[in-house]
Amino acid sequence: MNVVVQNIERADPAVIAGLGEAGVATVHEAQGRTGLMASYMRPIYPGARVAGSAITISAPPADNWMVHVAMEQVRKGDMLVLAPTSPSDAGYFGDLLATSLLTRGGVGLVFEAGVRDIADLREMGCPAWSKAVGAQGCVKESLGSVNVPIVCAGVSVNAGDVVVADDDGVCVVPHEKAAEVLEAARARLAAEEDKRRQLQSGTLSLDLYDMRGRLAEKGLTYV
Amino acid sequence: MNVVVQNIERADPAVIAGLGEAGVATVHEAQGRTGLMASYMRPIYPGARVAGSAITISAPPADNWMVHVAMEQVRKGDMLVLAPTSPSDAGYFGDLLATSLLTRGGVGLVFEAGVRDIADLREMGCPAWSKAVGAQGCVKESLGSVNVPIVCAGVSVNAGDVVVADDDGVCVVPHEKAAEVLEAARARLAAEEDKRRQLQSGTLSLDLYDMRGRLAEKGLTYV
Amino acid sequence: MNVVVQNIERADPAVIAGLGEAGVATVHEAQGRTGLMASYMRPIYPGARVAGSAITISAPPADNWMVHVAMEQVRKGDMLVLAPTSPSDAGYFGDLLATSLLTRGGVGLVFEAGVRDIADLREMGCPAWSKAVGAQGCVKESLGSVNVPIVCAGVSVNAGDVVVADDDGVCVVPHEKAAEVLEAARARLAAEEDKRRQLQSGTLSLDLYDMRGRLAEKGLTYV
Amino acid sequence: MNVVVQNIERADPAVIAGLGEAGVATVHEAQGRTGLMASYMRPIYPGARVAGSAITISAPPADNWMVHVAMEQVRKGDMLVLAPTSPSDAGYFGDLLATSLLTRGGVGLVFEAGVRDIADLREMGCPAWSKAVGAQGCVKESLGSVNVPIVCAGVSVNAGDVVVADDDGVCVVPHEKAAEVLEAARARLAAEEDKRRQLQSGTLSLDLYDMRGRLAEKGLTYV
Amino acid sequence: MNVVVQNIERADPAVIAGLGEAGVATVHEAQGRTGLMASYMRPIYPGARVAGSAITISAPPADNWMVHVAMEQVRKGDMLVLAPTSPSDAGYFGDLLATSLLTRGGVGLVFEAGVRDIADLREMGCPAWSKAVGAQGCVKESLGSVNVPIVCAGVSVNAGDVVVADDDGVCVVPHEKAAEVLEAARARLAAEEDKRRQLQSGTLSLDLYDMRGRLAEKGLTYV
Amino acid sequence: MNVVVQNIERADPAVIAGLGEAGVATVHEAQGRTGLMASYMRPIYPGARVAGSAITISAPPADNWMVHVAMEQVRKGDMLVLAPTSPSDAGYFGDLLATSLLTRGGVGLVFEAGVRDIADLREMGCPAWSKAVGAQGCVKESLGSVNVPIVCAGVSVNAGDVVVADDDGVCVVPHEKAAEVLEAARARLAAEEDKRRQLQSGTLSLDLYDMRGRLAEKGLTYV
Repeated sequence: MNVVVQNIERADPAVIAGLGEAGVATVHEAQGRTGLMASYMRPIYPGARVAGSAITISAPPADNWMVHVAMEQVRKGDMLVLAPTSPSDAGYFGDLLATSLLTRGGVGLVFEAGVRDIADLREMGCPAWSKAVGAQGCVKESLGSVNVPIVCAGVSVNAGDVVVADDDGVCVVPHEKAAEVLEAARARLAAEEDKRRQLQSGTLSLDLYDMRGRLAEKGLTYV
Repeated sequence: MNVVVQNIERADPAVIAGLGEAGVATVHEAQGRTGLMASYMRPIYPGARVAGSAITISAPPADNWMVHVAMEQVRKGDMLVLAPTSPSDAGYFGDLLATSLLTRGGVGLVFEAGVRDIADLREMGCPAWSKAVGAQGCVKESLGSVNVPIVCAGVSVNAGDVVVADDDGVCVVPHEKAAEVLEAARARLAAEEDKRRQLQSGTLSLDLYDMRGRLAEKGLTYV
Repeated sequence: MNVVVQNIERADPAVIAGLGEAGVATVHEAQGRTGLMASYMRPIYPGARVAGSAITISAPPADNWMVHVAMEQVRKGDMLVLAPTSPSDAGYFGDLLATSLLTRGGVGLVFEAGVRDIADLREMGCPAWSKAVGAQGCVKESLGSVNVPIVCAGVSVNAGDVVVADDDGVCVVPHEKAAEVLEAARARLAAEEDKRRQLQSGTLSLDLYDMRGRLAEKGLTYV
Repeated sequence: MNVVVQNIERADPAVIAGLGEAGVATVHEAQGRTGLMASYMRPIYPGARVAGSAITISAPPADNWMVHVAMEQVRKGDMLVLAPTSPSDAGYFGDLLATSLLTRGGVGLVFEAGVRDIADLREMGCPAWSKAVGAQGCVKESLGSVNVPIVCAGVSVNAGDVVVADDDGVCVVPHEKAAEVLEAARARLAAEEDKRRQLQSGTLSLDLYDMRGRLAEKGLTYV
Repeated sequence: MNVVVQNIERADPAVIAGLGEAGVATVHEAQGRTGLMASYMRPIYPGARVAGSAITISAPPADNWMVHVAMEQVRKGDMLVLAPTSPSDAGYFGDLLATSLLTRGGVGLVFEAGVRDIADLREMGCPAWSKAVGAQGCVKESLGSVNVPIVCAGVSVNAGDVVVADDDGVCVVPHEKAAEVLEAARARLAAEEDKRRQLQSGTLSLDLYDMRGRLAEKGLTYV
Repeated sequence: MNVVVQNIERADPAVIAGLGEAGVATVHEAQGRTGLMASYMRPIYPGARVAGSAITISAPPADNWMVHVAMEQVRKGDMLVLAPTSPSDAGYFGDLLATSLLTRGGVGLVFEAGVRDIADLREMGCPAWSKAVGAQGCVKESLGSVNVPIVCAGVSVNAGDVVVADDDGVCVVPHEKAAEVLEAARARLAAEEDKRRQLQSGTLSLDLYDMRGRLAEKGLTYV
């Protein structure tokens, strides 16, 4: 019942990098407004923006044994994504695990749980998105699984899915759709650039998107 | 039923500026401890302090059509204030809307909802106070109203009211009372300056405010 | 019933300083994973790390009279620790009280309630951990007690206990155990240094902690 | 600043009774989906449905002095509606106040705060809607106001407004619109009766409301 | 992108009935402690226990159009399971929809959102589990999907999965595992019956489960 | 570090019974408004009112091993009181444990965590107050302690303290003060009886408590 899946498919690193540059809001829109984690998933420090391949972890509450197990599966460019089997704000991850993660080329973590040593993580450049900051110690007593499908903060995540995270939160792209979503994201960014210029010149979005007719039709009244 | 009120009364720009300098805590005290929004209204980045005239928006959950409509009503020095008709943490506002808002002279926004692209907003200098940071996309399907009375984060806000916002939260001053509240705020600040000096010199507030007698009378016992 | 206890025992200043250097996560572990406050206790600005002796305050909701009373009890190196008698996010502490606290040599505060004037506190270097940031004014009408045992954010705190606070939260060490906990914390830090080097060189924690046998025994399967 | 408004306008008792029979969901719809309090306002026991005229109370946190003051203003058919000036779950109301309320002809209460003695209130037939059940005692130290405009659970309430409350929550109807809203509510109830019969006979709402065309137009695909 | 899947596989009705009799706690254990929804999913009235096949609904916040669409897919023994695309406590379901659901043989609903007319639903015998009770009206403007995989209250649900719901909450069993889980549940119930008798006769679970040795080994000390 | 304290002092059974009859609100008042647990501690079914001696349990999150250990310590008239070492809503207690508890003469439980099989518990007459209802299974892997001082829902509880619980929540009375608190509670109940009669006859509490003078002095204005 408790397994570690060792061979997982990841998306193309260039695609992952592109999605990271696009950022959470754009990627979320580009894949049809899906994949966004709940808004309680917040960065432990502002300003980070990363994308990586998900190493998924299903772990018991306040038990981080599986994080140690998962570390062995981390390859360059990976992110740890953890969901506890029942809610927990205990500190599943701290500076020693961060040392390992960075040593192995990991780029960050997304835990629907607690994270600790956050001053160290900030200094080390190990970005984390979590439900809580908390120093409560974890035990290493019960098994979970690594690289199985999980639900993290309301989103289904499979091992190897692309995780994009920045100050806006966390968005997950199925790895088999990553290239297609990147294309849509780039198209969106290009279109936004043009819109931005028009808005800067004073054009109203009401006119840019031609909304006045439909507003009137719906019955909006100016008084 | 769904209206946009186009002509609203605003307070004197100098008064608004004065209230902004005084800050949320002082303004809240100066108007008899009223007007303070709920403490879940937090700035998306620290350090901003602004005051502006409220352009109020009543919008359906996860539908930001009315933000586009409201933008046309923005004049120099205005702030957008939005309350959804039922709770929502969707992202009603992002970098394109921020471009418009700043272009039109708007100074910030207060949304009892979600805001996104917050790294861009920080860079652009577009301060926002919100209930959530969230990238969830909004639709443009249902009408709301602009510049009607709303309740935002527990406070009644009318179009043209002065909104003061800083790291402590958000406080609303009815525009017709703005001058009077500013006067009270300035008196308070002046009085605080004197108190601060006394406290710095080691005087206890117990003595400064002459509290010992009343404490004893109430029965406080030192052991 | 309402008392101010004036003579309290504090731990050795050198021990307190040592615990502060060790930080919350380490101290929490070093004393057997006890003493950690709930994760909703957050710093009002990032980067502070302090330790001090607790001046405890039991206060009515939205009434900060006892904070003024407690100030007189503050000695160099003390921290104010407040628990309301029923939940409140009102602003019990602001820049004037901070002026007094710093003037008297206090090093910070931990309030299971609201704090205000946080931009000023940041500038003054007065670190605070609280349940909320809020400007709502407090009254001075009802008594509470100072330096009596309280429960703050889920932890029993006695006057004179050592309070350690940093970006990870707040941990409380009974003052009579402070020296012993410091010793354990230092042993832990030394051991971590060695572990960190091994992890940096690429050793997995699975091997460092010799976990593979027990994982297999519990039934973990690699696929 | 702290006032008790003694003469308030109430709606016609027959209209109030009619709104009570219609219930919260229908009344909310009948007045254009406005006036509904936040969903955290829950009945202390199931099965009650009442409507009454609001006696509004603005009270400090954990201070129920103004409830005593408000009692004198209660006439037959009134309901107490209380909003604290900052959040509180203290017990503002218990069996003694309920005795007075029922003696004076009051029909219930809506408190964005705590209520206690709920087993007694259930037995006495004193329905209450509140944010919390809690026995924490209140003080009688600070003034508030009675029959001034308040914001309760996200809704503006004026003295004399009609409050409708049942298992679905609480809805407020401005007293000057009460007759008009009742008419709309009755029309709605009549229309629903017909719809109910059609739905019972197996007609789908898709057909009853003629939705298929618009769904297809929007792009809904059956697979 | 927005689809209605019309042909779904359901589990054997006898198996579904068996799972319903076993109840949430037993079924959750029998399938390896998986499938349990978050504890905020509560019944609108106590005492109901049902099981049915999931008709899944992905719907926009405060928009219940897809519930009307889903109704056509309901067969005897089905349950509606809805997850909004961003959090909403609006009332997606009321007495008219309940009339349709019961008319079509549906047995209940599980909505990570609001439900209204709960007094009527209780009277009609239409059990519902939801995140909130709320009367806020929904619009019918934006599409969603029916019978696609959703995440509801932290659990992945596919159309046709068996949903078991009672006073303890909601548990989901993949329809292809339903028979196997039922067998495990029955074995568990049988074993519990024997344990219950022993416990009733005064045997301690410490002895029944032979825990004393392992407790001593772990270091538990009796004083 | 992990201990089970076997000999604890309990209050006199007649005193415990008296406190139970007085109920939570009265007992809380009678001991100076202390000892009341947080308002999120709710009964799993309405109508129960019990008092008992606390068997305290400190347990790891989602690990109920110590409940089994504690059961052996239960004597007639005892109540289990559990606080997890970090927040958990897992189901620590169900029908089998309830069978044991009732068999041993226990009268109920107070868990700052989850409880399950609540329909069975209601039928068996095993009242429980908890933070959550949840079926999530617990492990039996890590030690905790029994009959040591704990903090449960914001209140310090020692083994043998009197726990009073009813629909209003939970209040804890130190066992050495139980007799004195009962006396105060009875005095209070007697006084309330007289007040109730006066209120029923139409006397206002404003007059009964002679509040008018102090209200006027504070500045309350009637308009």
